[in-house]
Order: sequence, then structure tokens, then C-alpha cells
Amino acid sequence: VTILGQTERLGGARERFYEWMGVLNDLKGSIRLLDWDRETAMPASGADARARVVATLHALRHRELLRPEIRDDLAALAEATDPDGPEAAMLRLAAREIRRAERVPEALVRETSTATSHAVSVWLEARHDDFDAFAPALERLIALTREMAEAMDLGEEPYDALLDRFEPGALTSELEPFFAELTTRLSGLAARVDRAPPGRPFAGRSWPAATQMAVARDVAALVGFDLDSGIIALSAHPFTGSPHRGDVRFTTRFLDDDPTSNVLVTLHEAGHGLYSQGHPAEYERTLLHWSPSLGAEESQSRFWENHLGRRLAFWRAVDPILRSRFGASMDGIAPEDLHRATAVVPPSWSRMEAGQVTYDLHIALRFRLELALVRGALAVRDLPEAWSAGMEELLGVRAEGAEQGPMQDIHWAAGLIGYFPTYTVGNLYAAQLAEALEEEAGPIDGLIARGGFDEALAFMRERVHRHGSMLPTRELMRRATGRPFSADALLAHLERVAADGA
Amino acid sequence: VTILGQTERLGGARERFYEWMGVLNDLKGSIRLLDWDRETAMPASGADARARVVATLHALRHRELLRPEIRDDLAALAEATDPDGPEAAMLRLAAREIRRAERVPEALVRETSTATSHAVSVWLEARHDDFDAFAPALERLIALTREMAEAMDLGEEPYDALLDRFEPGALTSELEPFFAELTTRLSGLAARVDRAPPGRPFAGRSWPAATQMAVARDVAALVGFDLDSGIIALSAHPFTGSPHRGDVRFTTRFLDDDPTSNVLVTLHEAGHGLYSQGHPAEYERTLLHWSPSLGAEESQSRFWENHLGRRLAFWRAVDPILRSRFGASMDGIAPEDLHRATAVVPPSWSRMEAGQVTYDLHIALRFRLELALVRGALAVRDLPEAWSAGMEELLGVRAEGAEQGPMQDIHWAAGLIGYFPTYTVGNLYAAQLAEALEEEAGPIDGLIARGGFDEALAFMRERVHRHGSMLPTRELMRRATGRPFSADALLAHLERVAADGA
Repeated sequence: VTILGQTERLGGARERFYEWMGVLNDLKGSIRLLDWDRETAMPASGADARARVVATLHALRHRELLRPEIRDDLAALAEATDPDGPEAAMLRLAAREIRRAERVPEALVRETSTATSHAVSVWLEARHDDFDAFAPALERLIALTREMAEAMDLGEEPYDALLDRFEPGALTSELEPFFAELTTRLSGLAARVDRAPPGRPFAGRSWPAATQMAVARDVAALVGFDLDSGIIALSAHPFTGSPHRGDVRFTTRFLDDDPTSNVLVTLHEAGHGLYSQGHPAEYERTLLHWSPSLGAEESQSRFWENHLGRRLAFWRAVDPILRSRFGASMDGIAPEDLHRATAVVPPSWSRMEAGQVTYDLHIALRFRLELALVRGALAVRDLPEAWSAGMEELLGVRAEGAEQGPMQDIHWAAGLIGYFPTYTVGNLYAAQLAEALEEEAGPIDGLIARGGFDEALAFMRERVHRHGSMLPTRELMRRATGRPFSADALLAHLERVAADGA
Repeated sequence: VTILGQTERLGGARERFYEWMGVLNDLKGSIRLLDWDRETAMPASGADARARVVATLHALRHRELLRPEIRDDLAALAEATDPDGPEAAMLRLAAREIRRAERVPEALVRETSTATSHAVSVWLEARHDDFDAFAPALERLIALTREMAEAMDLGEEPYDALLDRFEPGALTSELEPFFAELTTRLSGLAARVDRAPPGRPFAGRSWPAATQMAVARDVAALVGFDLDSGIIALSAHPFTGSPHRGDVRFTTRFLDDDPTSNVLVTLHEAGHGLYSQGHPAEYERTLLHWSPSLGAEESQSRFWENHLGRRLAFWRAVDPILRSRFGASMDGIAPEDLHRATAVVPPSWSRMEAGQVTYDLHIALRFRLELALVRGALAVRDLPEAWSAGMEELLGVRAEGAEQGPMQDIHWAAGLIGYFPTYTVGNLYAAQLAEALEEEAGPIDGLIARGGFDEALAFMRERVHRHGSMLPTRELMRRATGRPFSADALLAHLERVAADGA
């Protein structure tokens, strides 16, 4: 078959396929912008209408996935495409999205969306003290989520289908023993972390919000974030959300008695932002443009926050920024003080405030409990007690009341079940990437002292960013790091962190 | 036929019709938010991708309008609906939108969209000095626009179809003699306006940007704009753009040597914003929710800016805001000074800076020239000369070069042909509304002195806002003012303005 013959036989299928992917991408970009604006600009009175508009765009995307014409085009292209090339990867991702859209009835999507909006509202009202008020909404959501998982019919048990939404290919049968072993080894480490309440070494000085925003921009630029094609804004919960190429956005937040929090939040989100800015231009408006999973996403933010940041060399590099921006407020504060204040965090009930050593124990607890909820092995009404017992067992801390317990995160209320494990998966990959970087370029401390962050960024651009979602995350990371899926690098890293703080 | 029989016969047609209108509205709201964000937040590097995303949403809306199933539903509903009720109005608007979508081939829409993006880029590059560089892009755009007008096949000549996009029902055969007479009468008035260059009474004092933003918020609140369900931001060209109910947004801009400019820009845009906030809640997510035309829109901004504002009573009401916000910078400045500085503007080449008396002459010139271009009676290459001659004839001022001539506005580059006349239509209705308000509530000066702006807003809510687009603009305004379409009120108002400044 000649190329001409192929083109004739395809009869425009390729053009239609690319245009169809473009529409899917444009709808996703619009949803991302609507979400960004909701968190950064929208007045609260716009919330109901905004939820409906976003639901409509999701429904249009669902309808687009189910267009009957596209099936024939996909079939025709599958025969005419190099099975190892990017187009074959696009076709695989397209088939995956279509399969999901086919299996989950639109009525169930809409019902879940309504139940989620309701659960979030109840959570916002009740989260400080009233688990009982929240329980019925959560029960309903878990029932619907299980129904959805069964409809998706992926993997070995319903929870696999939920995982697959965020980390394609991850299996419960693999994660369960993985978390069990990780928990055992981390609990030992956590027991060694200093439990003294942290000091407040920066209190009583002036850290004005406008200056903190300038610092956020300086820190982002320092690690290579391109501010000409990006935006930094403020929001209650920092996040990165980029509507499309050339427009990468993240938020930070400020503490008025501590300048380091903003720096580390910025570094974390800039990690996401650098990834987005490095997505391959040639795959724009295709299904390969973005990252292959949340674990891959999180590997980037954690790499920058925990492996490039949170070390003395990092604070030495940031020190001149803080000094020039904050002036006299920095008098008598050395890079060593900045490092000490951020290196070790005592174990507590809070995931958001957790240090590196305990962070994955918080995730392990959530994984264990949400898996039990989905399997029907744990009733929602028994969740607070199971939470307290687990917290005591894994972290050796007491959680008092709903706010310190299962109400501290919005995830479950937002229907994000199967999402938490991707944080630990990201931590695992971040540690492997850091080891691979040191193998190539020598110790990170020396690398920063030598030339800042350019080498680390170039390494990441080459090994991870430029591939878009050409490869599934696990294969991408295996090639990037030369390592199989394993917690060894993460545990070795956390051993060092715990030893530093012990 | 019983109601039950009807419902059975309709077989879900009504539910589908409302859901379909909801999707159309949600897509429009998404486009508005993408446009808002482009002007207020987006980095320049996002422009290309943003243009594509917006084009995709327009295309999806076009596809939605052409869904074959909806035809049968519309036909079934037409028989089952009270012909004088709101649902009949929705069906008429739906039929109108569908007819337009059917007649204009999608290829032409896409070609025009591309030609417009190109023309705007060229305009941005060349607008200061190079009409010749812009001419080919404009020629192409006018050819495509004429093609589109012919495809639409509305009214008596192609320009009618262009007008109809912005002011449904307006006819060239009516507007041409209307503008001819207006021009004659206004040229006489314009000749009487003081031509001395304006002083700079506020220069050399401090009018900081952050304080001007606080003033904008105070002024908006003063006239009744609800800041809890609205946003004010900054942009190069002020505009109002509201994604949906409960989320009404406008922008302003600041001059650093004059605090009055921001006040009047805010008042103008708040006029649009008040209209959006007054749209009927019961028609949300239907085609009746928004305003029936740009002339109706502009009647609101002009009403507030030119009839409630730009008078001594207004500046007396705003004076305490300026005094409390700007402090010592206001020393020695009385409301009379604020009024004098803004009441009369000498004629010039600039539409954007024009005073009330000359404004509609700028529009008359643009109407005359764009009509000649669409009719083929004027070639694009002869536009600068025709512009200069018209400027001399109508306003008695010289326009030097492209920037002072046809390159001063972005409208034509953006494909907005048939748009300019709606500014004057809005001015006409604003003047009629002001007369009707005075008939009901007595002189506006007394009304402001008596109780601020509440009475004016209540009047407008009742006569205009609450109707959404139940009625075509002309009928809406005839009922609201008791007056037929006529420039008498506008001319009487401008006579007074010219007399004040003479």
C-alpha cells in the first residue's frame, strides 16, 4: 500500500482524529480555566452557576467521546499507524477515554456530580466539628462511587477502577502490600522524629503580603519557571492549573509570621508549573500533550520541594532573594536558620502540615480506610474511630474530633476516592529521580552551589517533560531513572532526613 | 386538549428545549469568561491557544444550534405554548439563532475567524502609522463579511444582516436618513463647542492606582452595584463581561494625573453591570436571560454616564468619596471643579476621548464609511482620504495619519462591522429613558440630592432590566419611555450640554 493509497483509504480520518483530540483538549482547557477562576477570582455568589457551566462542559466532552463517527476513524488509523510511534499512543489513550465514557452511564455521572456538590457543601459547613452531619452525604457518595467503579469494570476489584482514574495501570493488589511494608518501615522512622513543638523563629518581624508575592515570583524564576508565559496568584489552597500551552498558572499562600512557608509552597507548585511549561509543543492539542498520571505530576512538585528544596544549599540560594526583598526583617537570620526551621516537622494529626518523614503515613492511613470503605469492610459511621486508631498505630499521635480526623481533607467530599495514593506514588518517583540526577550530575548540594537549578531542570526536561504522555507513568519513570517501581529510594531519602533531625 | 394530553404529546420536548437553552447559555458564559480572562489575566503567550479554544466553543455552540432533534421539539412546543408568554419569546429567539447558524456555512465562519485573528495582529503592529500594511487584511475581511451578509440573507441589503447581529431588527433604510439628519443638527452644535485645549487641573497631585481602585469600588457601590456578586478589575480597554448570573464583572482604567476619568469609566461600566445584575433570575439558563441588543446594553451605560453622571449633582455626591480616599490631594478642589473638568470636551479626531456633543458625529462618520465599504461604493485604499474629508466636514477637525484616522478603533479589524451604530442607538435610548425618569420622578438633580441613585435604579429595574430579552429592543424602549424611535430627546439633551459649555 503506497502512502497515497493509504491517504485515500483513510479519507480524512487522520484530520478528523486530530481535530477531535483538539476539541477534547480545548474543552479540558476551558474547564481548567473555569476552575482556576473559581478559586482565584469568582465571587461566592457565582458558585452555583459555575458548577452548572462546568458540568455542561464535562457533558459536552462526554458526548464528544461517544461520537459514533470517530470509531471508524480510530479503526482505520489503527491499521495505518506505526505501532511504536506517537500516533499509536494517541490512539491507545483515545480508546481508553472512550471506553470509560461508554461504560459509565451519563445519568450516573450526573447523579455523582450532584451528590459531590452536595457533599462539598455539607463538608464546608460541618468540617470543624460535626462528622454525623457529613456521614449521610459521604455514604451516598461512596455508594455511587462503588457503582461507578463496577460500571467501569477495570482491573481485579472495584477500587482498581477508581485508582485508574488518577493513576492508570495501578493495581490494588500491588499497592496494598506496598503500603503495608512502607508503613512498617516509616513508623519506625517516625518514632525517631523530634516531638518538641516547633519554635516560631520569624514571629514578631514584618513579612508583608505584597513582598511575599514578589518573593514567590523571584523563587519561581530562580528555579527556571518562565514568568512571561505564566501567572502566580493567591488562593486558600495552593494548586497549579493551566488552561493551555503558553499559559501556565499556579497559586501560593502566605503566613504573616513565617516567610519560609510561601517559599516551599511556591517551590512545590513551580515544580508542577515547570512540568507544564516543558510539555512537548509538537503534541499540543493532542492527547499526548499533558502528563500521563497524577503520580507523574506529583513526582515533579515533590522533586523540587523535597529534593532540591528543604536543604541548606537551597536556602543559601534563596537567602539573597529574601534579604533583598525583606530588608531588615532578615537581620540575624542565616540560611542555616531557614533550613533548620523547615527541615524537620514533629508528627501531628495534620496531613497538610506534615513533614516528609510522616507524610506517607498519613497517605497510608487514608488508602487503608478508603479501600475498606469501597470494599464495604468499613461503615462510614465507624470511620472516626478507625481513623483515631490508625493515627495512634501509624503515627503515635492522637486525633481529637472530626476536624483532626477524617474531615481534615476535602478529597472524599469531592468524590476523589483513589486519589490519595498518587501522592505517595509521586514521592516514590521523586526520590528515584533525585537518585538518578545524582548519578548523572553528582550530589545535589554541589550542583546547586555550582550553577543553581539549571542542571536539574535540564535533566527533568530530557528525562520526563519532553515525553508528554507518550509512555505510561511506570514505563516513563523506569526509563528516566533506570529503576523499577520500589520505595527503596524514598526510604533511603527519609532515613537521611530523619537522621538529620534526630 | 387537556394539559395531560399536551404533556404526553410533547414527550419531553419542553425539558429538552430548556436543557438545550441551558447548554447554549453555558457555552456563551464560558466564552465570556475566557474573554474576560484574556483581557485581565492571561499572559500574552497564551493568545494563540486561547483563540483556538474560544473558536472551538463557538463551533460547539454552532453544532448545538444545528442539532436536528431540536427542530421537532421546537415545532411541538410552538403549538403548545401561549403566543404572548415568555416561552413563545424563547422559541422566537431560538428560531432566529438557528436560522443564522443554518445559513452561514461553517467553513465561512472558520475562514472569517482566521481572517479576523490575522487582521487584529496586523492592526496591533501597524496601527500607529501604517495603513497600507493593514489595508489587505481589511479588504479580505470586508469581502468575507459581505459574503457572510449575503449568506444570512436578512433585510433589504447585505448591511442589514450585519446590523442584525448586534441590533436585531434595525434597518439600513431607516438608519441612513436618521444619521443624515442627526449629522446636520449635531454639526451645528459641535461648531459651538469651545475649542480651547482643556486645562489639567489635577496634574501635579497624587492619585495612586490602589486608591483609584478603592474609589472605583465606592462609586460602583454608590450607584447600587452589588460588589458581593461582582468584580472590578483593570484592563487597557474597559469593558463589562459577565460569565453568568451571580458573577458580574467590569474593568476600569486609571489616569495618574486625573481622578475623574476612572470615576466616569466606572460609572459607564457600572451601568452595564447594574443591567446584568438586574436580569431576571427566573429566566436564568434560557435565551431570555440577557439583553435583547447592544443598543439596549449601551442605553444603560450611557444613561448612567451621561445623564446621571456628568452633572454637578453627581459630582457633589461623589465628592465625599474622593475627599476621604485621596485626602490632601483634594484640597482646594470643589465639586464645581470636577464638573467643569468633565462637562465639555473640545472636538478632536478621537472617538474614545470625544465629549457627548461630538460623540455621535464620530459614529455617523464610521456608519457612513462602513456602509460604503460593504456596498462596494468605497475602496479600502481610499478609506484614509474619505475619513479625513468626513472628519473635516462633520467635526471641523483635521485627522493626521492612520492613527488619528481609520486605525484608531479595533472594531473593523475585529470584524465588528455593523456594530458602531449601536453606540448612537444606545445614546438615543438613554436620553429617552432620562426624559421618562424625569417625567416620573422630577428633575434628576433634585432626585440625586434627595436620595442618591436608588430611585433611578428602581426605575430602570422596573422599566428595562426585569424584562430580559422578552421584547425586541425597540418595543422594550417604546414601552419603557412612551416614546417612538427618535433622536429628539438626545438632541434636546445635547443642546443643553452645548449651551452649558458655550
